[in-house]
Amino acid sequence: MLVMTAEEIKDFMRESFPQARMPIEIEELRDGFLRIRLEVTNRYLRPGDTVSGPTLMTLADTAMYYLLLGMIGPVALALTTSLNINFLRAPKLGDIVAEAEMLKLGKRLAVGQVTMYSEDGNDPVAHATVTYSIPPV
Amino acid sequence: MLVMTAEEIKDFMRESFPQARMPIEIEELRDGFLRIRLEVTNRYLRPGDTVSGPTLMTLADTAMYYLLLGMIGPVALALTTSLNINFLRAPKLGDIVAEAEMLKLGKRLAVGQVTMYSEDGNDPVAHATVTYSIPPV
Amino acid sequence: MLVMTAEEIKDFMRESFPQARMPIEIEELRDGFLRIRLEVTNRYLRPGDTVSGPTLMTLADTAMYYLLLGMIGPVALALTTSLNINFLRAPKLGDIVAEAEMLKLGKRLAVGQVTMYSEDGNDPVAHATVTYSIPPV
Amino acid sequence: MLVMTAEEIKDFMRESFPQARMPIEIEELRDGFLRIRLEVTNRYLRPGDTVSGPTLMTLADTAMYYLLLGMIGPVALALTTSLNINFLRAPKLGDIVAEAEMLKLGKRLAVGQVTMYSEDGNDPVAHATVTYSIPPV
Repeated sequence: MLVMTAEEIKDFMRESFPQARMPIEIEELRDGFLRIRLEVTNRYLRPGDTVSGPTLMTLADTAMYYLLLGMIGPVALALTTSLNINFLRAPKLGDIVAEAEMLKLGKRLAVGQVTMYSEDGNDPVAHATVTYSIPPV
Repeated sequence: MLVMTAEEIKDFMRESFPQARMPIEIEELRDGFLRIRLEVTNRYLRPGDTVSGPTLMTLADTAMYYLLLGMIGPVALALTTSLNINFLRAPKLGDIVAEAEMLKLGKRLAVGQVTMYSEDGNDPVAHATVTYSIPPV
Repeated sequence: MLVMTAEEIKDFMRESFPQARMPIEIEELRDGFLRIRLEVTNRYLRPGDTVSGPTLMTLADTAMYYLLLGMIGPVALALTTSLNINFLRAPKLGDIVAEAEMLKLGKRLAVGQVTMYSEDGNDPVAHATVTYSIPPV
Repeated sequence: MLVMTAEEIKDFMRESFPQARMPIEIEELRDGFLRIRLEVTNRYLRPGDTVSGPTLMTLADTAMYYLLLGMIGPVALALTTSLNINFLRAPKLGDIVAEAEMLKLGKRLAVGQVTMYSEDGNDPVAHATVTYSIPPV
């Protein structure tokens, strides 16, 4: 039931959002689920050598957008309508893995949750719910 | 790592919150996880024979509170500090099952997520994240 | 720009939501703004003689719904899609006043914020943002 | 009741958060209220010449942090614990103004709301509520 592959999503992002240059790899994509990895470089850190809050918010929004692309394709200009995030623990220095799960894919709204982890940790560092508005065809 | 059983939680609720009379059964309680079932009667419905939004919000808050009781016991007067809920689908007529998962149990804050289902459905009807404040001992 | 008066909203609620029996008075209704008052009786309290969290969540949802009715009328079956609430202070014993402000009234989504006060207090006891979905005509 | 001036906040940010290089001016700071302006350059835009969602989330978090600094000073390492944002309208091309209002400043948690506007617009483009945790002294 996927309509775009990971490779197609990356190509679409490169063409459509040249400003978004986060070094993100898609590790897994299947119906209703996506896992991506952010390579954490200096620019994503805040004092204390921990990944900044805005980086995690952006990552959550991106993960949900990628998953939506995979499920409905690039035809529609989807927009974030709301995002709720809880910061749970200070991330360790290292990459961040984000797992997005679609909770509802309706005709007009898509709601998903994104759980983020330090690459070598079991406990989540942040959890977000994200809603996208899907414009009429 | 649990400090109260399902039975002890029910006794505690009966004594401490006589106003809270929702017909709730604890179906499963283990470290970090709780599942409860709300017996849906007329008073929890809204027009269209569907469970009302306030009922689902109350159920989410209750599920998180029960899980917290199980994990830290009745000693502390924990208070909800925030709740975020997304309503996903109209519940079918019938009981509602709520599954609470603890995302972080800190010294001062506990954050969990609660996913709610119609008793015979696979897709969630609502999803909430709930934060409780734990007072100093 | 209002399409229903306070009196018409009350009549509509009485007919359409007989289960919703909260003793609420509409104190002010104008374009984009509504103030209602909840008469706090025993059933809305929790231990410590303070208004319960579920009561405040229900009140926030109700305030936003009344404001939406005033602005778009009873034609559409609007549904809450999300609600986010922060509990700020323990309410004093007494009525609760809720002030709803429309942040955006679109064709498909309406977003508002609701600030709640104890009747004799200046500091808010809770603050919520509420999103309603407006079905196609 | 303010303990830092706008100038002191800017100096503190420059020293403590060298990575945070958003071009932000503090336009007004008084007890419980702050208004800042983001100079929108290319890097904050997304396709369609509109300010990106992550930019608005970061701005909301920053506004709340500046207001908190003004009210409690640089002594404590405050951390964002949660953020909820609703995107309301596409911002026009131009600067973004963010107004932060403190809803509660407790000993352990601070909760505020941030409303964001296009510089020449009356209707908000986004609204956020932000919670910070204040560590024990």
